[in-house]
Amino acid sequence: MTDIDSIVNNYLAAWNTLESESRVILLGKIIAEDCLYADAHLPETISTRESHCQFIDRFRDKFPHLKIELSSPPNAHHRFFRFGWQLVTPDSQIFAKGSFFGEIDRAGKINKLIGFVD
Amino acid sequence: MTDIDSIVNNYLAAWNTLESESRVILLGKIIAEDCLYADAHLPETISTRESHCQFIDRFRDKFPHLKIELSSPPNAHHRFFRFGWQLVTPDSQIFAKGSFFGEIDRAGKINKLIGFVD
Repeated sequence: MTDIDSIVNNYLAAWNTLESESRVILLGKIIAEDCLYADAHLPETISTRESHCQFIDRFRDKFPHLKIELSSPPNAHHRFFRFGWQLVTPDSQIFAKGSFFGEIDRAGKINKLIGFVD
Repeated sequence: MTDIDSIVNNYLAAWNTLESESRVILLGKIIAEDCLYADAHLPETISTRESHCQFIDRFRDKFPHLKIELSSPPNAHHRFFRFGWQLVTPDSQIFAKGSFFGEIDRAGKINKLIGFVD
C-alpha cells in the first residue's frame, strides 16, 4: 500500500487551498483520472478528476471559511482505506463530520472515494 | 437503494447464527455470488459467497461466544453504505469494534464489503 497518510494529507490540502490551480496540481498527484467520487449530498456521482476538482472549487466558493481536517487517522489494508473528517469554522466549531472510504489503484492513486456524513 | 437496514440485519444474523446451513441461506439472500470481501485480519481477499460463508464458519468455530451487533446504524447513498459493528462477549464487554463499508449491485445484493477495525 502506498503511504496512505501522505495521500490523505494531500487530499485534505487540496480541499483546504483557496487556489484552484494548486488544487489541480495536488489532486493530479493523488487522484486517478477516472476516480469515482460520491457523497450523500451529490445527486450524481463524479467520474473524472477534472469534475472532482470543479466540485471542490464550487464548495470553496460557497464555504471559503471552512477548513477540512482529520477527525480520525487514516487506516488501510489491501488496496482499501478509510479516514474520519470534519469541517471546522474559523472559531473551531464543527460544521459537519463524517468518514471517507476509498480505494487505491495499481499506480498508487485514489480511484474511488465515497463520503458519508455522521 | 434496497432497504439497507434489512440487508445489514440479515448480514449480522448470518454472523450470529451457530448453524452453518442457516448462514448459507441468510447470505444467499443478501450477498452476490461474486461479492468481494476484505478485512484487516485476512491476508487474502475473499471473492465468492461460498468462501465468505466458510470464513464466517471458521470465525464461529473459533469464537462461538462472541456476538456481532451494530455500533452505529447503517446509512447509504447511491449504491454505497456503511455501518459500525462491535463484537461483544456474553457479559457485554466489547471484544472488538470497527466499521464496514459496502456496495450494492443492481439485483439489490452486497457485491463488496470491506471491514475496518478501530
